[in-house]
This record gives sequence, structure tokens and C-alpha cells, in this order.
Amino acid sequence: MRVSDRVAAMQFSPIRRFNTYAFEAEAEGKKVYRLNIGQPDVETPPCFMDAIRKFDKKVIAYAESGGVTELLDAIIDYNKQYDMNYEHEDILITNGGSEALVMTFTALLNQGENAIIAEPFYTNYNTFCGQVGGSLHPITTKAEDGYAWADREMIESAIDENTKAICCISPGNPTGRVLTLDEMRLVGQIAKEHDLWIISDEVYREFAYDGRDVASFGMLDEFADRVIIIDSVSKRFSACGARVGCVMSKNREFMDSVLKLAQGRLCCPTLDQIGAAALYRLDPSYYDEARAEYEGRRNAAYEEISKIPGVVCQKPGGAFYLTCKLPVDSVEDFLMFLLKEFDDNGETVMFAPAEGFYVTEGLGKDEMRIAYVLNQEAMRRGAELIRLGIEAYNNR
Amino acid sequence: MRVSDRVAAMQFSPIRRFNTYAFEAEAEGKKVYRLNIGQPDVETPPCFMDAIRKFDKKVIAYAESGGVTELLDAIIDYNKQYDMNYEHEDILITNGGSEALVMTFTALLNQGENAIIAEPFYTNYNTFCGQVGGSLHPITTKAEDGYAWADREMIESAIDENTKAICCISPGNPTGRVLTLDEMRLVGQIAKEHDLWIISDEVYREFAYDGRDVASFGMLDEFADRVIIIDSVSKRFSACGARVGCVMSKNREFMDSVLKLAQGRLCCPTLDQIGAAALYRLDPSYYDEARAEYEGRRNAAYEEISKIPGVVCQKPGGAFYLTCKLPVDSVEDFLMFLLKEFDDNGETVMFAPAEGFYVTEGLGKDEMRIAYVLNQEAMRRGAELIRLGIEAYNNR
Repeated sequence: MRVSDRVAAMQFSPIRRFNTYAFEAEAEGKKVYRLNIGQPDVETPPCFMDAIRKFDKKVIAYAESGGVTELLDAIIDYNKQYDMNYEHEDILITNGGSEALVMTFTALLNQGENAIIAEPFYTNYNTFCGQVGGSLHPITTKAEDGYAWADREMIESAIDENTKAICCISPGNPTGRVLTLDEMRLVGQIAKEHDLWIISDEVYREFAYDGRDVASFGMLDEFADRVIIIDSVSKRFSACGARVGCVMSKNREFMDSVLKLAQGRLCCPTLDQIGAAALYRLDPSYYDEARAEYEGRRNAAYEEISKIPGVVCQKPGGAFYLTCKLPVDSVEDFLMFLLKEFDDNGETVMFAPAEGFYVTEGLGKDEMRIAYVLNQEAMRRGAELIRLGIEAYNNR
Repeated sequence: MRVSDRVAAMQFSPIRRFNTYAFEAEAEGKKVYRLNIGQPDVETPPCFMDAIRKFDKKVIAYAESGGVTELLDAIIDYNKQYDMNYEHEDILITNGGSEALVMTFTALLNQGENAIIAEPFYTNYNTFCGQVGGSLHPITTKAEDGYAWADREMIESAIDENTKAICCISPGNPTGRVLTLDEMRLVGQIAKEHDLWIISDEVYREFAYDGRDVASFGMLDEFADRVIIIDSVSKRFSACGARVGCVMSKNREFMDSVLKLAQGRLCCPTLDQIGAAALYRLDPSYYDEARAEYEGRRNAAYEEISKIPGVVCQKPGGAFYLTCKLPVDSVEDFLMFLLKEFDDNGETVMFAPAEGFYVTEGLGKDEMRIAYVLNQEAMRRGAELIRLGIEAYNNR
């Protein structure tokens, strides 16, 4: 009586596993600035709850497997502002971007096949891919280069005969790296030459700063038959707990495949879909306001982090993460120090060690990721605590 | 650029694929009695929406991966009425019973391994199991025997060297077969002798009629280390669209494994969990009322179906399904006739052909499943339409 090899090989979430020590620190009376997880303190637009409160059917019935019509309609209209034309049959609603990714890997990878992805990358991809017996081959990037990866030689060196897809997270988690539309075109061209699918995770789409244009693989018609877009309301509308995402593609065989999986699990929750439809109907000015808010936080966090002597960091262009190299041998050991031994006026700070975002053994040990999900003042104080912590840690 | 072998081998839902023809019949002005899908017309208890409407946090934030504490507490208390003692760490909240099953198969089966299950069985098990490269080995049952399967010889003949688990759906979908606690003990004993897991799908737990006691593998302490219980609010509380289920086990290695998968997809929707907690807090008299309602529907449906000359049917003991043999060569062809050619005073009827519930090639072609999800009058009329339809079909 054993569990499967695939779950035995999996790790507990490296983002969440330090939570216990943070709770202990809080129990001792310390204030912990939690910069470790992408849970913003930004208010969910009230139209979400308003739409749900108005639901008046007597029976909470199954929804259609592919999604509630009013949500699909709202996504179609939302896409049009970026000149992306997806029809009902090109979109399938999922339980967050997470289920969209699980379904995509299930639909694409046979056991032993792989997808390539720039590392460091959002660590749960390992779980999504590993649970169907696939693997991720890394395109290794460097803090010194701002984690750039849109380079033909780098990408092609990761492809082998078992590669089925190129994964692209832009704006990127955990690096904040943003691809331009031209860089996306290069990735598309390489995918075409090697006959690969493109899995484009665009959940941070609007969070691109310094005047960058919104860029999506959905804008590149020449690759439409191989592009799969992963999306979600979690970050865009600060509605992480709604668990509403979607997968979009113009490739019929792929969409038929994910529909089979979707029919198996029947449907996504009805109420959250109704709330999400209201979110997608928000005035586009909402995105400008949200972007400005996060850009301010990014600026504050980056300014403070840059003051740390010995840090290696470039200003992230998007999403709400900053990954950098710290002047310590082991970031995990340093984090334990922060939670167990350090405080400044009763306060300490928590981040995500970046090692879990790499698949290449030994990389990322001296890197951390912070999420700029708190307000500017809190971000400045959190970054200051990291700086003070390093001084104390290196002077022990 | 191909999709994976596993999705290529999957079917579209045999329960849902006749929907198109039903819509066409309705567009022509026919009334269609939809007995094909387990979507009851019973009102969802209003406490579900009431609890959700009261939610007043500003941010719809991620929940804990394992589930919201107030829901876990409510399930723990609900279990106690059946002398089942599960702690927080023994329960993990899932997106309906569906995700609980996907996670369970992912956690147990390596590629090429199998679980055994009495056929006919709830067809989506094929999708849940197939998406991780596993397969289902049938214990074939017969309409003539009321689909009985709790027999040592029948069960052991389905086990081979790659078998990892025995699946048990009781009360059963699609047959309505209910296992007694003694029969569960026999299944447990066989599992123990062959060192197998027990996956017990108990989503219809309270729907056992004719004075039958509620029976659960959770009551059998001697098998606690190998028992995995799948549960859901969908049927018990007529809340199919809430998509709240759970997986429960006392086996730590198994629960750690599903927690890894749960952390990967972050969490289930916050609001639906809050609503579900209120459902589990309903007075136990709710189950008696719901049971009486469905028992009346069962009686009405069975009485009418029994009137059909040549039908092979035993009275189902639980759930809300009735599967039987009809006096036609092809039930699928007959269903198409009902939807496209037949009507009686402008009315026709829809059921689920049972062939999709079998894995053994050729079985079930002359069987159908109806769900007694409509009120008694509608059930009688639906069954009458099947009888009239058979007369017309066989006299063409």
C-alpha cells in the first residue's frame, strides 16, 4: 500500500512552508511583514460581492462545464480592448489559473515529455507538470542580467526531442521580467520552427510599468494555432480567493481536449463566476489605477532594496515581485534568523527563498523573492528590515 | 504538435453529449423531461446564500490550502453523528467530490496501475483515473441481480498485480445499490488481504431508503489506515453548483500527498466554503426530510418503470438513480428516436444511456439510467413517456 511515485517526488510549497515559523514569531508578539506570498492588500472591487448578493435562484445548480455564459461574454469583451478576438468556444473557465495549467499539461504532455521554461519560475508549475508525469526543462537566467531569457540561443539550448511546449510567464513571477511584443514574436518563431505549443501565463498582464505596452501572445495571429493563454481574476482584480481563471486557445483539438477534462469535473462554482463577470465589466480606468498603485509600491521596494550593500538587483518591469541576490550564503538560513532571532523594535520580515523557484540543483540559494503586495510605507519598512537583518546576520 | 495520448483516448461526457438534441427538440416546441443528469430541483437550503451574503471582508483573499477552518469544524461535527471521528488534519476541502477523486487517483496510481470498481459506474471516474495514466478494472454486475457486487469471488477476480485500490460508490451511481456495513466489512477484509487502498465515494450517504441504516467506511476503525472517503455537499444539500467536496483519511502519508497537490492549486473558493459550513450545521432533521422526498420520487419512478413490458429492474435502495434493462436493442438509438421523432401531447423524455457507465465492450447497450431528481408527478410522467416511447419505437 504505497502512494504514487509522482506525489512522493513532490515538495510541499516552498512559499508556504515557512508559515509555521512566522506564526510562532507572531505568537511571541513580533510583527511580521509578510512579503512572501502574492496576496495583495488591495480591496476587491465591491461589484464582485454585489453581483453575488443579487443571486436569487432557489437552486445552486451545476453550471455549464465550459463556464457561465455571462462570464464568457464579459471575457470576450475585455479581450477586445487589446484587439484579441476570442469566441465562446475558444475559452474555458477554470478553478483559477492553477486548474487551467493542470488541464493544459494534462492535455499536452505524455509521461516523460517536457516543457521548457525560464528559471527561476513560479514553483507550483512543478506540481502541475509533475502530477501528469511530465517535467520542466529550465532556461537558466541570472540576477545580473535582470533574468532576461528572450534569446534564441538560450531558448534553443533547452529544447530536446521530448519537448512539447514553451512556457512563458510575462509579466513574470518571481522575476518581474516583462516580454515585449517583439520578444514574444521571437519566442513564437522558435516554437514554430520546433513545432512546439506556447503556454502563455498572462495573469499579470496589466501590471507592466514604466510606460510599457500591454503585450499578449493573443495579439500575434500568426501563431494562433499553437498559442494557449492562461488567465485569472486573482491578481488583476485582487480576487485571489474567488478561484476563477480560464484557458484560451484557437486550436480546436486542444480546446476539445480540455473540454473533456472539464466535463469530467462537471463545472466551476456558479456564484464566483457571476462575481467574476462583474469584475471583467469594470471600466478600463480600473487597470490604470491598479497599475499606478503597484508601480508606486515597486518603486518604494526597489529603492529600499537597492540600499542594501552587496545586493544584485535590477528594477523589475512588471507583476508584483522583485527577485534579487542577497549578500548571504544561505537565504533560507537568513530567513530562519529573521523569524527566530531578529527583530527591530519588535518587528521582522518574511520573504520567499528563491531556491524553490529553480529546478537546477544549487541555484538560487543566495536569492530571495519579495511580493510588493503591501502599501508603500509597509514595503519600505519591510525592505529596511531585510537590510537591518543582513547587518545583524553577518555580524553575529 | 499533438495532444497527449491520455486525452486523445478520453470520451466526451456520455451524460451530456445528447444535450444538443434535447435543445433542438425544445427549440421545436417540445417539452423534454430531463431525467438524464443528477441535478435535483430541490431547493438549496437558504442558509447557504445567507452565510455568503454576510461576508464583509474587503479582500477576497486566498484561503488555507486544506480548507477554511469553520468548514472543517462543521464537517468534524457532522461526522460525529455517525460516530466518525476525523480531525482537521484528516480532512482536505476540494472543488467538489470531482477534485477529491482526481487528487486521490493522482496520489495513488502510477502509470499502468489500476483500481477495481463495480460496473456500471459513474462514468467520470474514467476521466479522473485516465488523466493520470491509470485504468479501472471492472467487477461486472447484472440488472437481473440488482447490480449486486459485494461478493468475494467477484471482487477477487478483478484484482491483478497492478491493482492499488478498490473503489466503492455506495449508495451507488448509476445503480442505486447500497452496501450494508457488513458488506463494507467484507470489502475491507479483501482490501486488507491484498494490501489495497479503499476509495469510498459516499456523496449519497444519507439517501438510503426502506429503513436502511447510514453506512460508511469511516465507521470501520479496523481499516482506518487504508480508507479514503470522498464526500461532497452537491447531492446531500442540493448544492451542485457550490463545488465543495472533501477527501478524508486517517492515513498520514496519503493526506500529506493530497496536501502537496492542494498547495499547488493554492485553495478552494472562500465564499462557497463559508456557505457550505452553514449547510453542514443544518439540523439532522434536514436529512430525514430530504430522504423522504427522494424515497417518494424513487417509489413513483420505480412503480411506473415496472409497468413497462419486458423491463428488467429491481427497486434501487439508495442515491437517486434507477438503472434498468429496456426491451430495445439499442438504448442510444431509442433515445435519439425520443428526442427527434417521438412526442405525446408535445412532450418527450431524456435519460442517460448506460453503455457509457461500462468499461467492458458491448455491455449496457440495452440499459438506461434515470435520475429521480424531479417531483413525483414529473417522474411518473417521464416514466410514462418512456413506456409510450418504447411502444411507438417497437411498432415503427
